[in-house]
Amino acid sequence: MAPPCKLMYYPLKGIAEPIRFLLSYCNIEFEDYRFEIENWPQIKPTTPFGQTPVLEFDGITAHQSVAICRHLAKKVKLAGANDIEDLKIDAIVDTIVDLRKKITAYYYETDGAIRETLKKPLLEETIPYYMERIEAIAKKNNCHLAAGKLTWADIYFVGILDAQCYLSGKNLIADCPSLQVMQRNVLNLPGIKEWVAKRPVTDF
Amino acid sequence: MAPPCKLMYYPLKGIAEPIRFLLSYCNIEFEDYRFEIENWPQIKPTTPFGQTPVLEFDGITAHQSVAICRHLAKKVKLAGANDIEDLKIDAIVDTIVDLRKKITAYYYETDGAIRETLKKPLLEETIPYYMERIEAIAKKNNCHLAAGKLTWADIYFVGILDAQCYLSGKNLIADCPSLQVMQRNVLNLPGIKEWVAKRPVTDF
Repeated sequence: MAPPCKLMYYPLKGIAEPIRFLLSYCNIEFEDYRFEIENWPQIKPTTPFGQTPVLEFDGITAHQSVAICRHLAKKVKLAGANDIEDLKIDAIVDTIVDLRKKITAYYYETDGAIRETLKKPLLEETIPYYMERIEAIAKKNNCHLAAGKLTWADIYFVGILDAQCYLSGKNLIADCPSLQVMQRNVLNLPGIKEWVAKRPVTDF
Repeated sequence: MAPPCKLMYYPLKGIAEPIRFLLSYCNIEFEDYRFEIENWPQIKPTTPFGQTPVLEFDGITAHQSVAICRHLAKKVKLAGANDIEDLKIDAIVDTIVDLRKKITAYYYETDGAIRETLKKPLLEETIPYYMERIEAIAKKNNCHLAAGKLTWADIYFVGILDAQCYLSGKNLIADCPSLQVMQRNVLNLPGIKEWVAKRPVTDF
């Protein structure tokens, strides 16, 4: 990836943060372009499918945050060592995406009455259901999400965690000691530690 | 993948059909286990995250349909030839998943009033927005979704297409000549042609 490399997203951590983590870990210099929300109508038609984040590099306009993370992971041996490890990484990442989408569907629901009906099942059923199982996987995998070692699945999860806690109003890993260790380890990785220290302060 | 290989899903095409297509194309013998919907409460706790399809093979219980498809694709050279091709395949597949989730959110909405408010924007805005852009990609890629050649992205799209047309009540590719060619080509692939001829008849 030759410079310039430009990441475009809202002025938020959101689903761009795992990409910022991976770019930082890869030691790839990037422009962290954060547009103001009121400018989104002008920016939207310039994106492949009306969504961000978008990562521009080497003449490519890449979209879909998970696809971008998987691509970056291959550059620094954070992918699996074989096809079965990759399968397990991909499955847990898509599972995290499922949980993330349930949380954002609740947070961004504009109808107050509908939002209220979503809250209790999300906080008391869905989140505990997912987190109990994700924690069990981390416990079996030496405080990692797959393959018993650091992979981009760990970085993806820790990258979106702050935002998901904020949006759900709940510390997702409060009862998950293995995931707490994983979070500490990821936040101490070279590149990521420096990124987190210098990144703009945002709620989510 | 040594036999036995068992695919577990509802008695539907749904999101299991791309896996059935790929298993058939790979010439992998599999048990196409379709449980009755009333048995789901007993089956759900046996799955990794309370969801199907699940593919059991070589002592592994694989979940997440897209992850399973990506894994199968690697066995028959339907993945990209390099990391950039894989990035483009992954991005278009996750985009198709986004569209699929919008369609199923509409179809499975149980509140009649909410469902009605979802219908018009889905049929008149969301679906045309996505399909126009997916068709443009297919037109540029020689009637394929990425890399100018047959990849698992094509098989994923054609595999879920029937169900998505049924659930939305709309022929998604009616105005998409390149995607119509792609569909014909995929349905004529060795293994897939035979599978489609013999598969159980279901609405979606």
